[in-house]
Amino acid sequence: MTGSPLDARSPLDAGELPRVAALGGGHGLFASLTALRRVTDRLTAVVTVADDGGSSGRLRAELDCLPPGDLRMALAALCGDDASGRLWADVLQSRFDGDGALSGHAIGNLLIAGLWQRLGDPVAGLDMVATLLGARGRVLPMSRVPLDIVAEVIGVDPMHPDELSEIRGQDKVARTNAEVRTIRLEPAEPPAADEAVRAIESSDWVILGPGSWFTSVMPHLMVPELARAITTTGARRLLTLNLMPAGETRGYTAAQHLELLAEHAPQLRLDVVLADTRFARDDRHLPAYAASLGAELVVGDLAVRDGTARHDPLRLASMYAEIMGA
Amino acid sequence: MTGSPLDARSPLDAGELPRVAALGGGHGLFASLTALRRVTDRLTAVVTVADDGGSSGRLRAELDCLPPGDLRMALAALCGDDASGRLWADVLQSRFDGDGALSGHAIGNLLIAGLWQRLGDPVAGLDMVATLLGARGRVLPMSRVPLDIVAEVIGVDPMHPDELSEIRGQDKVARTNAEVRTIRLEPAEPPAADEAVRAIESSDWVILGPGSWFTSVMPHLMVPELARAITTTGARRLLTLNLMPAGETRGYTAAQHLELLAEHAPQLRLDVVLADTRFARDDRHLPAYAASLGAELVVGDLAVRDGTARHDPLRLASMYAEIMGA
Repeated sequence: MTGSPLDARSPLDAGELPRVAALGGGHGLFASLTALRRVTDRLTAVVTVADDGGSSGRLRAELDCLPPGDLRMALAALCGDDASGRLWADVLQSRFDGDGALSGHAIGNLLIAGLWQRLGDPVAGLDMVATLLGARGRVLPMSRVPLDIVAEVIGVDPMHPDELSEIRGQDKVARTNAEVRTIRLEPAEPPAADEAVRAIESSDWVILGPGSWFTSVMPHLMVPELARAITTTGARRLLTLNLMPAGETRGYTAAQHLELLAEHAPQLRLDVVLADTRFARDDRHLPAYAASLGAELVVGDLAVRDGTARHDPLRLASMYAEIMGA
Repeated sequence: MTGSPLDARSPLDAGELPRVAALGGGHGLFASLTALRRVTDRLTAVVTVADDGGSSGRLRAELDCLPPGDLRMALAALCGDDASGRLWADVLQSRFDGDGALSGHAIGNLLIAGLWQRLGDPVAGLDMVATLLGARGRVLPMSRVPLDIVAEVIGVDPMHPDELSEIRGQDKVARTNAEVRTIRLEPAEPPAADEAVRAIESSDWVILGPGSWFTSVMPHLMVPELARAITTTGARRLLTLNLMPAGETRGYTAAQHLELLAEHAPQLRLDVVLADTRFARDDRHLPAYAASLGAELVVGDLAVRDGTARHDPLRLASMYAEIMGA
């Protein structure tokens, strides 16, 4: 860990675990929660609801419900340490085989969608699954309304590499080879889930990232009530950068990742930017850009040792614990 | 309650609840379990696995699994008395709306089928759902192999009312207007689930019926290991007749219902035949036919008061408790 220690901040009372709201979606949020569950059990995940691909996309189209997949993954990440919690998480993550109507559906997606239909309330359904899993925390949708991501891109047509065009839908945005310049949500200015706003307001720490930058990290800042809660909460704000630029932001430097956030949420101030040594090393602008957002840059070895671009849960947990003084 | 009391049999030790194995399927078994759960919590349901209609039939065709529907209903009947158990039972019984790929599937059917695929063992999956529901007992399939019912019927073709023909599949057999004469299972002589055999062998009481006679009550007697366990167990055997002849056995008298069982399982001896007052009243052959199977006939008012042909769970429970001395 480099950078100045966070001495100026009052430590938590002895024995008190920090309240943490972790924002994101997909595999990035899964990594974040897998680490954070080792640091605290006062944990709330606030999850994107714009997926329109795969099992989630099919359920959303058929049942007009929120896409359950990212929520299911977050619940699985928080499953209890006992055999029952782990087994249920494993079952809910597994998918139907074959080539029939159920093929590819995650079992947990079907259960969550069924709970939603029966209970009529997404948060109540997620809380039931959390109880089933003995989850170490709560999982909330960022909005009760399913959202769509619309990206402004350039380079869709190789014959006109500078031409702007739009790509609709998270699934296509995440897969595009064109360069994503900016995103917006549809409906614009969607309502936030009240419980998510309250979780952010009452946290000690709000964690953004890692994750697909445009489709998992930035959407929260485009829901007005969430953006307001993130920018006005008394919590400290920590942004965890990806290990390397990939997917939607391949070719972007670490500082440019911060710049994208700042462009979409000009009010955003951060307390800590957490980056992996290798990504930070290549970017001499990063410390200054982090400082311009009010953040201290904390750098450490966060990746698994096998060379793949995945956060090591224990290294990430250790770093979070150190930063939070937990 | 008429008929001589069961004085000759040794009562259970004070405070000890009887071990009961309840055999059947569908709504009949649901009624049986809803009553028996009030009498004992040492309860095992042994459930038919020949359904090929509706949600169960679709899952069976798509995933090559046991039909989960009757098992799901039995689990719901045994759900815990607490709010969580009742809510989960309600959710698992509810079905997807709409007209898409999931339409009509019971949520519990999908969860059970998913557990089976992931765990590779039907009994382990059912035990997990039983734990989820806080079930007052255990639910077992009568076989680990999905079965088909083939009925020999007369009168399919109104032009040839005496012509014998075959109807394949429980769903069609249950709906036919032709007269069912006899049934067989495919595969013939299927293997029983070991746990089901042991539950019958170690019970104090084995309960057959009520239920659709050919498709829910008689199939157990056509699985050789189950038939042997039923006929050789030290348990007492109680057969609960339907409230009136309906469906596959409309037009049959009460005694003819017993006759059908005896035809398909000549070794079968019964200790108690339980019949509703109105059905028994119309059949002067019933006492003698029950006696010919070794059974005492017990008659009582078992129906709900609204006039529909449904067993009243509390009346049935009260009668079971009296008969079992529980």
